[in-house]
Amino acid sequence: MQQITDGSITSPKGFLSGAATCGLKPKGALDVALILSEHDCSSAGVFTRNEVVAAPVIVDRQVLADNPTRIRGVVANAGIANACTGQEGLAASRRMQELAAGCAGCAPEQIFVLSTGVIGVQLDLNKIAVGIEHACRHLSSNNGKDTARAIMTTDTRPKHIAVRIKLNEGDVTIGGIAKGAGMIHPDMATMLAVLTTDAAIPADILDGMLRKAMDRSFHRISIDGDTSTNDTVLILANGASGVTLNDDAAKTTFQEGLDAVCIELAQAIVRDGEGASKFITLEVTGARNPDEALTVAHTIATSPLVKTAFAGEDPNWGRIVAAAGRANVNLEAENMALWISNGKLDEFQLVDEGVPLKYDESQAETIFKESEIIVRLDLGLGEAATTVWTCDLTHEYISINADYRT
Amino acid sequence: MQQITDGSITSPKGFLSGAATCGLKPKGALDVALILSEHDCSSAGVFTRNEVVAAPVIVDRQVLADNPTRIRGVVANAGIANACTGQEGLAASRRMQELAAGCAGCAPEQIFVLSTGVIGVQLDLNKIAVGIEHACRHLSSNNGKDTARAIMTTDTRPKHIAVRIKLNEGDVTIGGIAKGAGMIHPDMATMLAVLTTDAAIPADILDGMLRKAMDRSFHRISIDGDTSTNDTVLILANGASGVTLNDDAAKTTFQEGLDAVCIELAQAIVRDGEGASKFITLEVTGARNPDEALTVAHTIATSPLVKTAFAGEDPNWGRIVAAAGRANVNLEAENMALWISNGKLDEFQLVDEGVPLKYDESQAETIFKESEIIVRLDLGLGEAATTVWTCDLTHEYISINADYRT
Repeated sequence: MQQITDGSITSPKGFLSGAATCGLKPKGALDVALILSEHDCSSAGVFTRNEVVAAPVIVDRQVLADNPTRIRGVVANAGIANACTGQEGLAASRRMQELAAGCAGCAPEQIFVLSTGVIGVQLDLNKIAVGIEHACRHLSSNNGKDTARAIMTTDTRPKHIAVRIKLNEGDVTIGGIAKGAGMIHPDMATMLAVLTTDAAIPADILDGMLRKAMDRSFHRISIDGDTSTNDTVLILANGASGVTLNDDAAKTTFQEGLDAVCIELAQAIVRDGEGASKFITLEVTGARNPDEALTVAHTIATSPLVKTAFAGEDPNWGRIVAAAGRANVNLEAENMALWISNGKLDEFQLVDEGVPLKYDESQAETIFKESEIIVRLDLGLGEAATTVWTCDLTHEYISINADYRT
Repeated sequence: MQQITDGSITSPKGFLSGAATCGLKPKGALDVALILSEHDCSSAGVFTRNEVVAAPVIVDRQVLADNPTRIRGVVANAGIANACTGQEGLAASRRMQELAAGCAGCAPEQIFVLSTGVIGVQLDLNKIAVGIEHACRHLSSNNGKDTARAIMTTDTRPKHIAVRIKLNEGDVTIGGIAKGAGMIHPDMATMLAVLTTDAAIPADILDGMLRKAMDRSFHRISIDGDTSTNDTVLILANGASGVTLNDDAAKTTFQEGLDAVCIELAQAIVRDGEGASKFITLEVTGARNPDEALTVAHTIATSPLVKTAFAGEDPNWGRIVAAAGRANVNLEAENMALWISNGKLDEFQLVDEGVPLKYDESQAETIFKESEIIVRLDLGLGEAATTVWTCDLTHEYISINADYRT
């Protein structure tokens, strides 16, 4: 597997993209994106688990149910989420499909729609139409970074990646863009990602692969525990490489590539979490089973007290143990052990058998001053383990979210 | 029911308390409290649901199991939580019992122990002994406010109340003190409360009454969604009034008084939440059943995005609806309606049938600038309703918790 410099959704063959400014975001920032394939694509998607879903999610679920093998592209806007907008919002999403289909020369129901931004505001379709038309006129295979930029909200940088994979039949490429920043939680939150590949893969197999990759990446990150109405991850496979995933070995290699792309994008979202100053890898080991490991890990990763302790660079490990204790998993306090590390030095143990060791506080503080910290909590109950990624909770998070609409 | 000016745990007959400084908190603040009854008490307690429990919680559960009708008092310290402290911590809690029992002239197992503060640090028993001795020498019925002050951690003010209730047989009094501030959540969090009464009530009836009052008060508040290792609510009934709760009418009247005391203390905890600048009453109506109403209410009340919107005085109601949507309760977005109010003017409706009304944004902003805000979300699914209380999430919360140990 080889990472492509400045790779994105247009790195796989037969994909073009365009970005435009239509005035939904202030200050003339890019806010409309168009991603088109020259050929019909197999497709799969994973959507928010929120009971309140935005219009584009309703539309995309239908598109995927009706046309999983004839997808031609994705149209997206940032600035307005088109959520809690009723029938008018649904009509707006369908109009976005029509406008993109006009550019692609396909039927509207072959186009996915993505929106992200403020909830409860109707889209200005005149602006959107101008934006889509502009993006259409500037389609290219070199617009990946701008396309990633056009779906950003409070993100501070575009998130994109592509990898090339060698299979026996030939090379295939997987590319992706994502946006995140706030409301990030295991169940995806205001998180959008579009993945593309030029491999030929049946839609049902693609669906299984996407779900596996999600469980290993986007479902393991947390910024603030909130989930949004719009979360969507889409994958489009257009077969333009001429390479089909024929055997199990090819599928395994492709899955590894897809996992790598998703993990990179997921970690990029956490690193760019609203106000985040630290990237925290949280390993929970010694659990009875993977579900309990993940439950404990997510409870710690979303604890405001844990996250503010990281922001304060305070090795207040008691909060980590206390958060684990409220995860609704049966634990034995006297079995717990805790290590911290900066990923360079050996692990540094703080707790054994549920009580603190007599460690050097200044050494613990040194590790907590790093921008990347690894925490490992062993529950001492079994063999299951998991890893999740989170960030600290800072003043900047409050500022961003208290003043989001102003 | 009549509220007693400056009332507290010593307002009921036959209770004395003392407070002292022993050096566990910096700057010579009060950090040891002693509450004693002149007579044996019936007692009940509710403890943290965290799997990791502090030594005093382990001790108190045993005390309650062995001696529910022979309790003589409570000894407490603030500054160190005595959690994650292993056998040494358990021995320290037992030593606190002995020292308090020496003062009370009773057996150690007739004394409850409370601790709150930093996790994973052993208590200095020499300091504690000096503190308990001092508190013992200054027992009085006028120390209620200082006793409440001695159990504070990041609280900015002591929380205490007492009410007098007229029953046919005569008057009884219920008093209480509490501390909270951070880690407050439905399941109680770093929250300590001691309730006293001079009514005569069998322990099993007292237990049922306490649990009912908890469900109506402490289990309905949230500061940051974290729960602690030490949460404890205790009630001691010494019968010194000579009044027994003989009939259902007396029990109902007493329950109302107990509810009022607990609600007042619970609301005082939210009002004094770490960094809180606003007190928010959140009503969820139109739910299928009370459990679903409470689940939706708690999910909204703990959402960082909702809480930062209040801090920013931004009527960004989309976050309230989105938080409701991720509560794992089946909802119909198009049934939802949302109102806000400052408790003085009529309610002001923002959302109807799941979509925003064309309301005057400046009027909504005026309400969000108030320090007390009432939000009502109607789910449009049934007849069940609930109310919870929460606060906003501010810069000050981050400052307090990032720098807690420094």
